[in-house]
Amino acid sequence: MTNNNPKKKDAKPKLIEPRVLKGFRDLLPAAAIPRQEMIRTLEDLFSSFGFCPIDTPALEYSEVLLGKGGLETDKQLFRFNDQGGRDIALRFDLTVPLARFVSANLNDLPLPFKRYHIAPVWRAEKPQRGRYREFVQCDFDIIGTDSVLADAEIGSIIHFGLERLGIRHTIRVNNRRVLNAVLGGIGAAEHQTAVLRAIDKLDKQGEDAVAEELAREAKLSPKQVQTLFQIFSLSRETGVTPQQLLQGLCDAIPKLSDDSNSREALAQLERTVMALLAGGIVERCLQIDLTLARGLDYYTGTVFEARSADLPEIGSIAGGGRYDDLTGLYCSRRLPGVGASIGLDRVLAVIEELKPDKTKPALADVLVTLLDQSSEQYAVATAASLRQNGVRTELSLEHSKLGNQFKMAERKGIRFAILAGEKELGSNSVCLKDLVTGDQREGLTASEAASLILNQRRS
Amino acid sequence: MTNNNPKKKDAKPKLIEPRVLKGFRDLLPAAAIPRQEMIRTLEDLFSSFGFCPIDTPALEYSEVLLGKGGLETDKQLFRFNDQGGRDIALRFDLTVPLARFVSANLNDLPLPFKRYHIAPVWRAEKPQRGRYREFVQCDFDIIGTDSVLADAEIGSIIHFGLERLGIRHTIRVNNRRVLNAVLGGIGAAEHQTAVLRAIDKLDKQGEDAVAEELAREAKLSPKQVQTLFQIFSLSRETGVTPQQLLQGLCDAIPKLSDDSNSREALAQLERTVMALLAGGIVERCLQIDLTLARGLDYYTGTVFEARSADLPEIGSIAGGGRYDDLTGLYCSRRLPGVGASIGLDRVLAVIEELKPDKTKPALADVLVTLLDQSSEQYAVATAASLRQNGVRTELSLEHSKLGNQFKMAERKGIRFAILAGEKELGSNSVCLKDLVTGDQREGLTASEAASLILNQRRS
Repeated sequence: MTNNNPKKKDAKPKLIEPRVLKGFRDLLPAAAIPRQEMIRTLEDLFSSFGFCPIDTPALEYSEVLLGKGGLETDKQLFRFNDQGGRDIALRFDLTVPLARFVSANLNDLPLPFKRYHIAPVWRAEKPQRGRYREFVQCDFDIIGTDSVLADAEIGSIIHFGLERLGIRHTIRVNNRRVLNAVLGGIGAAEHQTAVLRAIDKLDKQGEDAVAEELAREAKLSPKQVQTLFQIFSLSRETGVTPQQLLQGLCDAIPKLSDDSNSREALAQLERTVMALLAGGIVERCLQIDLTLARGLDYYTGTVFEARSADLPEIGSIAGGGRYDDLTGLYCSRRLPGVGASIGLDRVLAVIEELKPDKTKPALADVLVTLLDQSSEQYAVATAASLRQNGVRTELSLEHSKLGNQFKMAERKGIRFAILAGEKELGSNSVCLKDLVTGDQREGLTASEAASLILNQRRS
Repeated sequence: MTNNNPKKKDAKPKLIEPRVLKGFRDLLPAAAIPRQEMIRTLEDLFSSFGFCPIDTPALEYSEVLLGKGGLETDKQLFRFNDQGGRDIALRFDLTVPLARFVSANLNDLPLPFKRYHIAPVWRAEKPQRGRYREFVQCDFDIIGTDSVLADAEIGSIIHFGLERLGIRHTIRVNNRRVLNAVLGGIGAAEHQTAVLRAIDKLDKQGEDAVAEELAREAKLSPKQVQTLFQIFSLSRETGVTPQQLLQGLCDAIPKLSDDSNSREALAQLERTVMALLAGGIVERCLQIDLTLARGLDYYTGTVFEARSADLPEIGSIAGGGRYDDLTGLYCSRRLPGVGASIGLDRVLAVIEELKPDKTKPALADVLVTLLDQSSEQYAVATAASLRQNGVRTELSLEHSKLGNQFKMAERKGIRFAILAGEKELGSNSVCLKDLVTGDQREGLTASEAASLILNQRRS
């Protein structure tokens, strides 16, 4: 791209390389169309539960975003001074802006406030395969209630959301207070962080490695480790219904820890699970997992994590939980809540991996061809009429050879072509050609052609 | 917010003020819901014409964004260096990113390429009433064709888009080449910029003021001004059909300027208008206006501008036109195109002004109340069943007094309440209460209740 010949007088102006920034990407129609469909599916689901959309600015005061300390390091922040010298940054998640939003608009929000927010966030992370510096988050939360029915509603939405997106899945559920009661019961409360960090690795490293880490890092005795694993094993048995498992926990945990706190925690977990089942979650999609912690210091009650049943190795595709106080940094009123987010990009990755065909762009149903200059207006009118009849209609824009127009339709995956030239104009009709079978029907009205095309689309 | 008493030991941590940046705003549900509905309406329309969505990064290299010089001053750019020292900025429109996108992905795009892009852009402008530093643009373009049928398609989409959004409107159309032919015909070609700048003020300042400016700034003689106004007056007569006006222009303009260029320009305008009419634009919505220029040096052929028929003073609510070469800065291939954008925020302002009720948020149809702890699961299951029947259903999350639950429903604008307590559980039925009329129907199945609610919504 460098100008090798600065003396050449009539050199064209130097072209600017049309590159995108490292870690960013263009979305071509083949990717943008399925993403948009997913978003609309989820929007419809959210509003069926009475959730409303909101939006917040992409840019905020850095002070507002950093208050929470939600980022591992503020080096991940796209942060700068604007023309007015303000220290500002692009949002890195939708939770901190939600806290700021709720604090700023508390008087205008009916509580409990149910909102969803589907929007891009930015993180200056090291780009990796499938990880970008700009990505869309899809969050939904219920703010201002301690009710476990709210927890169950969030879990239901994860379930029905993934179901509507066509993803076979498992949702693990736990209650952090139950886990805390277990740790208290075996006398490991003071090493909670080390214990959680260790048991998070059970899936990947197995019991032996985790037992060793628990002894080394959390100073647990072999007896403590054994008791812990016994309790955990309850939730790892297969062929047990959620009700049986709950019963097992209600038998086992009070033997370790029988205070009002642990009883209440168990009752919460039980009510959440029962409401999930009453709300229609499919039993095989739900798994109570006492080892699920999801982050060390944010969630305080119910936690959820969902994985693809077909591609569990892709990791969490949705997750969330209950928090005690969303807005503590910005206002003095305590506002508990529960929420989750669905990882759109990961879900899309699952769909692409399992059903490559599913992500082909939805295209027009029909191409109205252009035959002769004198029938141009007739072709335009025919296209308008097909659209009015609900047919997605592309009009040829150039008077090229008919064969070339058919080829363009095939290249775009459009099955039907309409001929509306002088001959058809004369009889005020159109001719419909099926480019797959070669069948051709003449003398149709535009609305008859529309019916035939729509019937084919539905079948 | 300052800490007035630094010595007080048990002072709570200082709160962060939950403020938004100057020129930015939160969108509460009452604004976010109608905006989302508008976007979905337009997305459906775009795809009915075979347009596909795309997305591009919010952040680009400053070099890429500034190459076009599209901003009045680059002070309007949110521009900074990222952690890697790159000179980057937030996009200020969707046209420059489109040019970069098309240049970068040319091999993967079928030409003519029809795309739409609905996304936020950022400009560090002086904030004014109704003007924000972050706003959503809605652009649609056809790239890679010189066909005037493409021009007409863009005009059709403006028309049907505004119609579907419920906006009575007028779309002015012109062809810059016709205007140039007129200016050439009266011998004012070399003062084109000054002439265009003056005639742009005809609506606001009237003929006398504009005549004076034309004499002063464009050095036009009284005779030249008179001829110009005579031609313009053709397109300002009322009660003239587009066909009659086109005929008038085809009579008048060749008397001034009769070269192949002006004949071709007139033929282009005629074909565009005829295709717009064939495509179903309502005649009274279309106005050929020879004075329409829309910017001084970007558009090269057809131009469009739409206003609200009820609130013309709000200014342009949609506009666009044909350009000769989109991608010249980034690639050597010439790519002409035509496109427009619909001003979502201005359209929303029109709707709010004319029909304040229309912008009330769409809420849930029904509230399922919570009566007693023992019937909690039944209430949850009832809510799930109503949703499965297509009813937007909110579930009460707290066991508060029934009267308070009804009040909450009314405050949220929810018309119906469902009682699903112990009594109903016993008979496996629900009770539906119309909170407006007070009517109550007992002994219904959930799907019977759903039908009654949906019938009411439709009526």
